[in-house]
Parts: sequence; structure tokens; C-alpha cells
Amino acid sequence: MSRILVSDVKDFVGKQATVMGWVRIRRDHGKLIFLDIRDRSGIIQVVVNPQVSESAYKVAQELGVEYAVSIKGQVNQRPGKSVNKDLESGGFELEATEIKILAKAATLPFDMGSDDLKLELPTLLDHRGITLRHPKIAAIFKVQAAIIDEFRNYLKTQGFVEFQAPAIAPAVAEGGAAVFEVNYFGHKAYLSQSPQLYKQIVMSAFERVFSVNKIFRAEPSVTTRHLTEVVSLDAEMAFIDSWLDVKDMAEQVVRSILKRVEDTCAKELKMYKVELPKMIDKTPYLSLKEAQEKIFKNSGRDVREEKDLNPEDEREICEIIKKETGSDFVFIYGYPTKHKPFYVYPNPENPEVNEGMDLLCKGLEWLSGGRRVNDYDQLTKQVKDWKLDPNKIKLFLEAFQYGVPPEGGFALGAERMTMQILELSNVREASIFPRDMERIDERLSTQKKS
Amino acid sequence: MSRILVSDVKDFVGKQATVMGWVRIRRDHGKLIFLDIRDRSGIIQVVVNPQVSESAYKVAQELGVEYAVSIKGQVNQRPGKSVNKDLESGGFELEATEIKILAKAATLPFDMGSDDLKLELPTLLDHRGITLRHPKIAAIFKVQAAIIDEFRNYLKTQGFVEFQAPAIAPAVAEGGAAVFEVNYFGHKAYLSQSPQLYKQIVMSAFERVFSVNKIFRAEPSVTTRHLTEVVSLDAEMAFIDSWLDVKDMAEQVVRSILKRVEDTCAKELKMYKVELPKMIDKTPYLSLKEAQEKIFKNSGRDVREEKDLNPEDEREICEIIKKETGSDFVFIYGYPTKHKPFYVYPNPENPEVNEGMDLLCKGLEWLSGGRRVNDYDQLTKQVKDWKLDPNKIKLFLEAFQYGVPPEGGFALGAERMTMQILELSNVREASIFPRDMERIDERLSTQKKS
Repeated sequence: MSRILVSDVKDFVGKQATVMGWVRIRRDHGKLIFLDIRDRSGIIQVVVNPQVSESAYKVAQELGVEYAVSIKGQVNQRPGKSVNKDLESGGFELEATEIKILAKAATLPFDMGSDDLKLELPTLLDHRGITLRHPKIAAIFKVQAAIIDEFRNYLKTQGFVEFQAPAIAPAVAEGGAAVFEVNYFGHKAYLSQSPQLYKQIVMSAFERVFSVNKIFRAEPSVTTRHLTEVVSLDAEMAFIDSWLDVKDMAEQVVRSILKRVEDTCAKELKMYKVELPKMIDKTPYLSLKEAQEKIFKNSGRDVREEKDLNPEDEREICEIIKKETGSDFVFIYGYPTKHKPFYVYPNPENPEVNEGMDLLCKGLEWLSGGRRVNDYDQLTKQVKDWKLDPNKIKLFLEAFQYGVPPEGGFALGAERMTMQILELSNVREASIFPRDMERIDERLSTQKKS
Repeated sequence: MSRILVSDVKDFVGKQATVMGWVRIRRDHGKLIFLDIRDRSGIIQVVVNPQVSESAYKVAQELGVEYAVSIKGQVNQRPGKSVNKDLESGGFELEATEIKILAKAATLPFDMGSDDLKLELPTLLDHRGITLRHPKIAAIFKVQAAIIDEFRNYLKTQGFVEFQAPAIAPAVAEGGAAVFEVNYFGHKAYLSQSPQLYKQIVMSAFERVFSVNKIFRAEPSVTTRHLTEVVSLDAEMAFIDSWLDVKDMAEQVVRSILKRVEDTCAKELKMYKVELPKMIDKTPYLSLKEAQEKIFKNSGRDVREEKDLNPEDEREICEIIKKETGSDFVFIYGYPTKHKPFYVYPNPENPEVNEGMDLLCKGLEWLSGGRRVNDYDQLTKQVKDWKLDPNKIKLFLEAFQYGVPPEGGFALGAERMTMQILELSNVREASIFPRDMERIDERLSTQKKS
């Protein structure tokens, strides 16, 4: 008899079915053994009654938590009072007639049977191979998969083409401390910090492009927001009228991601008892100056001469906007030109500020982007003004020598969005195998220095 | 007036429309200027007639190849004899009333106006930022995007969850020469050669998983099949009955990819004058032994004692199968256990050979996979027999301590499939920014050794 998924048991009431999965919980009640069996679709209760099957009961007595099993039996509706409302399949149970052990499990180093997995972060990560099985931990990566998939899906509907950005880079256009060096056949190479220049090259051929790829940051930082390896969701679009086209596309992408998570991850959001951040019909957008003025009026904190918003400013402006409009999101644009990368487009009416933008959500930056310099002469001038070596970005500059129309783009960090949607306290929880200064799978302190 | 795409001009016959794109070709005929304008959707002919618009004509006289332009005009049907059947929009033309230059272009270093871009590979790659604009080169990456997207799409319909495999790895489980070393905050780390162990870990929680990620190979090799950075399409599935389930899933994925390319890339296939490899209803599968016997019978070449098929064998067995069945594909399984990685499942009836498999297409390996060892005791024994250090794969081994059911998986290389589908002669053509021993964007010989 071929396997059915737990989520399909509702179609088998009164019939025989085979379920395969892992023993999540075993409870012995008098002469009965109850098992919670988990498969990729959900959890179902199995009743093992020796009066129904002596042989199944015998096998069930051997079972421990995380044993992988195949269980045949009859699907029954559970009586009203014993329906488990927390489970999608909580209205059904399987009365076992045959149990096969597919793989045994050692005794778990900690309890995985409760709804919350109460472990310190290092323990959670040291045992990623086990902790990933906990439904609430697995939920994080289901939400993340939905976020990433919807980023692609939405952009495909808008005529964007996917490309594969490289990870190994020959040089670092934007200065150098925070990159990882690779020994490349005796040459120095680096891990890419951003697909920025590559996506602009590919945009110059395909007009609208996106990539989902790893970027690498070597900042020696151990904050709750830092990873050394991050999944970057990048997009770039040509033939824009102004940076507002880029802003609108970015907003639509985020809106579409939120909708997808709402539509397909209700169970996961419920586990975390969270509501999605609220995006109103038109997300407010403010220049940096306007944001600083609002902060000054709101709390008297005078940050009007600052070149950027610091984390406190970001929190405050988000609170102000939330109060004023109900929006959890706000775009901030118009940063001081000289404080941002060379490729960001200066406002022609006031070249001191640029047409770069960030999208903040509840005090955290979700997205960064804006219009880019597309004119070749202006671009080479800015490369010079920023004191960069044009030889190191030849491929990029050459593309702009041949007619690149007005264009812009943006990037989102998958882990950060996941973290904030589920209100996790540390971005490491939102990376399936997080890399940071102190860890690559295992803690580095346990390894030798080279 | 908002922009329309070239592919939509058919809906604007007799009406005004604005097209934006690049000048692909300019031809001056007496008092008329003809432009081929390329956008992301296609190519359209524009007629600039000074008697229709003197001002448009004046601008057109300035235009060179690859200028980015915005052109307003009336869409007309072309008379029957002047329809360009090679173009989707060849039945229409735009009579310009207004032309705006969005960005100028320098003079191209080579001609890009013909259907084929006849450049040596190094030149093609040295100028990737320009050559990507050639429709036939762009076609390669449209096909590749379709391949990768369909890999994901099909697996999603089968309950597979996407995960993000890491690029930075702490150690190399399978020995060591051919990996890139990364200086990781003073520790030695490596670029991942394969997400194999990670996908098995994630499978042990999610049952069915896939990833699209970069893998890195440091073999000092300059063949036409080698890249140092490759897009790997990986999948892994639990609760299989036998390796045949893995084979069937792999076949369905490839079938689905071929269908997607057929359905959505007809134009691109036509440019390359290729037909898709033929996959028959049931792709033949042979053990290594059987394949070697067939080769012996076919040509008298006796490779029956070899541990693997060499490229010549792969070509020959594919030719034999093509003749016998019409199939361009053949699975080969059952390799000598000791010649394959420790995680490949030995055939229980004959442990000298394993349940690993490859899918060959016209002499080239497209896919590699098979059943894996899932029993913890067997796995630790094989780790020992293969003389590997279990401490270096602790996270992996721990997952298998806790009930991993029978499982298997496979991997495909995106560039290789793209190369063979379009019958390209070098895999570098199928990588948008290929990395090899001699090149990261630019040729390394021009750079200093570290």
C-alpha cells in the first residue's frame, strides 16, 4: 500500500492507509500506546491497541522519539471532545495494524516534544541536524522558502530574467577591509560582497534582471544582525523615468512577498504568534531631511546634521510613521551623495543628495536601492571622484560605454526579512547553517588557527 | 505616452506607440533611415522619414549602434513582400514621429549586427558586458533561466522544499586537493565542493528538499567542460522504497525541464538550429556491467574490468542506446562501491557495487545521484572504511543518529545542460561570468600573483 501524507488522512476516514514519518511523542496509557507521527505535511496521532494488532503493539513498545516508521492502519475520526484543535489533522487518528521501523534513533540530547524548543542559540545551532526537525524551527525555513520564491515569482511576472551572479570576484570595487580572500590558483581573489556591478551589466543586456545569490561580509562583528554569508535578493531594471519607478517596483515586490507568506504560511505565523507587518496602499516615502525633521519635532532629538539614520533614528521614524499612517513601512531617500557608493545617482537638482533609498520596516532596513548613474561620462567622473581604480571594474564600465538608459534596482536580505516577519531575536535563527565570526557549523574556537 | 514592448506592437496597428530599446542596426536608404530597435522582447524596424518628422530624422542622423532610444510613432503593417519572417514582429514597423536619445554609445569594437556573433571565446568573454546584448548570446541565458526555474517548479509540485546551501565550508569531508581555501578570520575554511552533506541533513528534517547553489572546484584543469564556479541543482528525498524512486524522480525532473525549454524557448532553440535531446517514455537504465558488455559486443572494445566509464565509453553507450531505443538518455547504475563516496548505498545483495547512478545524454553526464546509506551504524562504518575523520562531519553524522529513513538524491549542473541543449562547444559559453584557472572576468595572466 503506497504512502499517504498526514495532510491527506481526511480523505481516508474509515479506510486503510499507510503513513510514514517520525515518532514525535510516545505516550503509554494503560494498555494503549499513543504516538504522534510527524511527516513533512503535519502531525497525526496513532493509537496502538494490542487488541487490534498484537504485532504492531510489540513493535510500538520498541519505539523511541525520532524513530522513522511506516505505519499501516485505519483512519478514524476522533470524537468531538478529543479533537486536537492545534493540529490540522487533529480531528483524525490512525489505528495501527502494522508498524515497521525504518530507522532507529538514539536518545535525544534534549526534549523536542513541546511546542517551543527552549534551547540557547549555540545549542540550537550545534545540533542543527536535529533541531531542524522541530516543527517551530522547520517553520522558519518554510517561511524563508516562500519569501525567496515569491521574490522570483513576482519579478518573473514583470518581465525580469533570472541570472546567476558569481561568488568569486577578482577585485573589490568599493574598498577592501571587509572581504574574504580566496587563494585562487596562486592569485588573490575575493568572495563577492554584492552582485551590484554584475547585475548592472546584465541589466544593460536584459533590461530587467534578478538574482538570488550568496554575498559575503567579513566584518569582524558579532551583533544579532550579522552573518558572514547572506542570501541576497537582487533586482535591476532599465528604462525607468525616475527613481520612483524603482521604489514602486520594490514596494510591489515586498507587498507580494507579504501576501504570499500570509496565504501560504498561516500555520507557521501562528506558531510564532505574529502578525505580518502592515503595508498600507501607498507606503510613505520621506527624504532623509524630512525624516530628520520629523524626529526633531517628535522627540526633540536633533539629528538634522547627520549623514544617515542610526538604528535609534530608524526605530523612531518608523514609530512616527506608524502613528501617522498605520504603515509599518517607510522609504527614506536622498542620502548625502558622497556618503554612498559611486554608482548611486545624484539628484540633478541638488547633486549633494542622491536618489538612493532604503525601505525600513519597524526600525529595520529591509531593502536598499535607488537609481544609478547611467551616463558613461558621469560614471567615469564619479569613479575618479570616489578614488576607485577603473581597471578593476573594466567589464562594468565597458557596458556603460554602450548606451545604458536610465536604470535602478534594489536588494533585500532573505534572512533579515525572515527574522523580522517571525520576530526572531537573532538573524542566526533565520539562516539554516549560519556563518559568523565564531561559527562555521561548529564553533571555530574548537578548531586550530591556520 | 507610456512605453510598449516590441512584442506588443501587433496590438497597436494604426495607432501611436512608444518603443524603447537599443539601435541594433542603422541603414540609410536615400532619404530614409531604417533602424532595427531591440528591446527585451524582440526587434522591430523603425522607419524615419523626414517628410513625416523632420525633427525625428534629425535625431536619427546622430544615432549609432547601441544607442539607447525612446521612439514614438505609428505602428504600420508591413506589406506582404517586405515582411521579415525571421522576426516575431517582422510584420510590423514603426514610423517615427519623435526620437529621444536616452544614452549614447561608443563605436563597438566588433560588429554585432549579424545573426551570428563570430568571435573567439576569449574576446566574447573579455567583452561580456557588450556581447551579452547579442540576441544569440542572450538566448543562452534565457534557456538557462528556464532550466533552473523548471528544476525548482517541478520539485515544488512534488512537495520538495527549497533551502539555501552554504558556500563556506569548515572542512572537506571527501579529501582535499581540489578545493579553494578561504582566509576566515584567521581560520582555514573552504569553498563548498558540493551541498551533498547539507542537503542530506536538511532532508532528514524536511523529507524532500532542493537547492540551487554555487559549488566550487579547484581542479587545475582547462578543458572545455571545466569551470571553477558552477550552478548546482540539487535534490534529496526520504522514504524511498529503492534507488529506482530516485531514478524516476530524476527522470521526471529532466523531462519537465526539456518540456519547459521546448514550450518557452522555441525562438532560442531556432537560433541555434538545435533539436532537444529525445527522452522516450521510459529512459533505459543499465548497470555498469551491462553497459560494458554492450560496448564489448558493439565495437569489441573490452572495458569490462574498468571501474567506471571513460568519455569514450560514455559516447559509445549513448550511441548504442540511441540505436536500440531512440533515447538520447541512459541511466548507468551500480558502480564499484569503493570507487565512489562513502555515502553511496552499497547494493545489499552485492555490496561490491553500489546504488549510485548517472544520467548520460549524448555522451555527457547530466546528472549524478542514487540511494544513500541511511543506517547510522553502516554510515559510521563506511566513514571509517573510507578513512575519513568523523569529527569533520559531526553535524551530518548527528542527523543520521536520529532515525533517517531510506533516502536518495541527485544533482544536475546548470551550465552543462545549457551547453548541451544548445550544442555549445565550450561550457564557458554557458556561464554568464565564467571562472576558470585563467579567468575571473579578465584573464588572470594580466594580474599580479599574490
